[in-house]
Amino acid sequence: MKPAITYELIKQCPHTGARAGRIHTPHGSFDTPIFMPVGTQASVKTLAPEELKEMGAGIILSNNYHLFLRPGSKLVKEAGGLHKFMNWDRAILTDSGGFQVFSLGDLRKISEEGVTFRSHIDGSKKFLSPEIATQSQMDLGADIIMAFDECVPYPADFKYTRESMELTLRWAQRCKDTMTNPNQGLFGIVQGGMYKDLRIECANRLVDMDFPGYAVGGLSVGEPKELMYEMLDITLEHLPQNKARYLMGVGTPDCLVEGVMRGIDMFDCVYPTRVARNGTAMTWNGRLVIKNAQYEHDFHPIDEHCNCYTCRNYSRAYIRHLVRVNEIFGLRLLTIHNLHFLIDFMRQMRQSIMEDRFPEFYRKFTANFSFNAKSV
Amino acid sequence: MKPAITYELIKQCPHTGARAGRIHTPHGSFDTPIFMPVGTQASVKTLAPEELKEMGAGIILSNNYHLFLRPGSKLVKEAGGLHKFMNWDRAILTDSGGFQVFSLGDLRKISEEGVTFRSHIDGSKKFLSPEIATQSQMDLGADIIMAFDECVPYPADFKYTRESMELTLRWAQRCKDTMTNPNQGLFGIVQGGMYKDLRIECANRLVDMDFPGYAVGGLSVGEPKELMYEMLDITLEHLPQNKARYLMGVGTPDCLVEGVMRGIDMFDCVYPTRVARNGTAMTWNGRLVIKNAQYEHDFHPIDEHCNCYTCRNYSRAYIRHLVRVNEIFGLRLLTIHNLHFLIDFMRQMRQSIMEDRFPEFYRKFTANFSFNAKSV
Repeated sequence: MKPAITYELIKQCPHTGARAGRIHTPHGSFDTPIFMPVGTQASVKTLAPEELKEMGAGIILSNNYHLFLRPGSKLVKEAGGLHKFMNWDRAILTDSGGFQVFSLGDLRKISEEGVTFRSHIDGSKKFLSPEIATQSQMDLGADIIMAFDECVPYPADFKYTRESMELTLRWAQRCKDTMTNPNQGLFGIVQGGMYKDLRIECANRLVDMDFPGYAVGGLSVGEPKELMYEMLDITLEHLPQNKARYLMGVGTPDCLVEGVMRGIDMFDCVYPTRVARNGTAMTWNGRLVIKNAQYEHDFHPIDEHCNCYTCRNYSRAYIRHLVRVNEIFGLRLLTIHNLHFLIDFMRQMRQSIMEDRFPEFYRKFTANFSFNAKSV
Repeated sequence: MKPAITYELIKQCPHTGARAGRIHTPHGSFDTPIFMPVGTQASVKTLAPEELKEMGAGIILSNNYHLFLRPGSKLVKEAGGLHKFMNWDRAILTDSGGFQVFSLGDLRKISEEGVTFRSHIDGSKKFLSPEIATQSQMDLGADIIMAFDECVPYPADFKYTRESMELTLRWAQRCKDTMTNPNQGLFGIVQGGMYKDLRIECANRLVDMDFPGYAVGGLSVGEPKELMYEMLDITLEHLPQNKARYLMGVGTPDCLVEGVMRGIDMFDCVYPTRVARNGTAMTWNGRLVIKNAQYEHDFHPIDEHCNCYTCRNYSRAYIRHLVRVNEIFGLRLLTIHNLHFLIDFMRQMRQSIMEDRFPEFYRKFTANFSFNAKSV
């Protein structure tokens, strides 16, 4: 039987690890490398599915932790699954909740069996295990579901990181044993902190379990970017060419370019939607803080060369006005622009791979792009 | 020269004052009776112009008071006018700001010349006069602009009301003298509080000044509904058949039906958009509070018979989820539904007038409709 999720390699950059591909899912195929807009609670904040389609989004991410708590995975199943519930007929990936539970800090307790935690909503006691997280994601019905893992904090010592990696590997097997839906694909997650040998070992042992795709987790958790890139380099060497590779929680342009150069196919991050709601637009010239007085009488679009709905129809002055007077439509216009920007950014990167000029794209980008590195 | 705004009477109900018509403006024509969605700050809260068009909105209202303060009428003029600024190419009506200034209570001081007031934003001292309010609306460039009037509180004694009416009449003339743009139409506003003879006198004297349309102001300010209807009855008797009539700030279904029965053509109210943002949907069976537990597993649309974007694509359970977890998209879906409901409600009323069955519509509505009267 054909697996639910397959990766098709279309073009390998001869000079770097960058690759152009296509991922096939039960809800359509999409080109890679790709950026996945985040719809944490079954909604990409402020947007309708039609707006995501207009900008070319082929897959979005939603979050098992949040949906498990509200409205509950069983309710979503009863609704006919997440696609139907939220009116999105293209691909969906759900995060397992491992990262969110990890982020709860003192509110969670990890055991071999799973994680007991306090809900961030009402403090009530909850429990997630590999089996429960996987079953929950089966109920949600996303195309790609993620293994329930432990995300190691940074910094962490070798012993803790090694034991945590072993736990993540045992949990990965339990997730795999639980996942019985032939219309979904379960991705394994490589952990191992900032230790190269652990990254290598984790990658190899996950590959032995044979998943339809592999994520790199536990990065962008506070470490210097150079260290993240080192870990990526070593991890990607040990992941197979014929499977999708997903770098979790990363989405600023500089990290996207570095990730693609190393062979990552999929990315997600709340960055573009979150900064939009803070009044910031992303452009090829860096960030544009729309509230600034300099845009008061600026009747140009955010970006003259952008063909998103926002830039085709609205001026900086209008968006600035909306943001200043707290009109929701302003956040929506910025969200549309930022997601369109990132999706288009990935499209252009892919095009450069297809045309054997990714190194040129990389050089031009790193020379000109002024994104604030601290903003990741 | 043809006036910018003309009213075309298409069908008069033979049994009541209800009438079907069409208003022509420099930005297109629209059928009446009509409900105008409110876009106070140059945005109908949460919505894009395309969504308003999809539901059939032919005219929206925006507010001179708010735009005068932020971003400033001159800036909107510099942007090419309100239509271009907010990307809306159909008709716009702007309120003069009289009502908002009146609502400021102790923060404003009225003189013959105009009103000195404190901005609700930063407390800074501002001044609006008939000339300034009219010039500001000319800068905004709305198709229909409103005279700057004094809205009398309820209750108010005869002497105060009479003097206020005289002031409003003098101000109406000053607005008329200021308004020189042939592409805009200035409507007079009938005041006179809850005194029939004042309403009659105010209507007659405004009609003598000859405006392209007349609004009934100073109603729905706390008086019993029966009293409002009485005032409407007497006022409408004294307004000409060949001009548009606009009942300001009224928009619950029961008031719309009563207004139409008496011959009103235009209505506006923040009610449908405001209650949407409180999680309430409007239906033919009354209000539906989407947060209620009874909708948790309800996978039907808000209204099975509604063909709005929301009802075509989303369930009560999904919208309830969005509202509970504070997702903006939930407010947007409810706003779309409520405005579509009211626009469609007016469309059906108009159809009943066209088909000589408005009295039947009225009877059925008053017998079945369970809207809470207190909600106005």
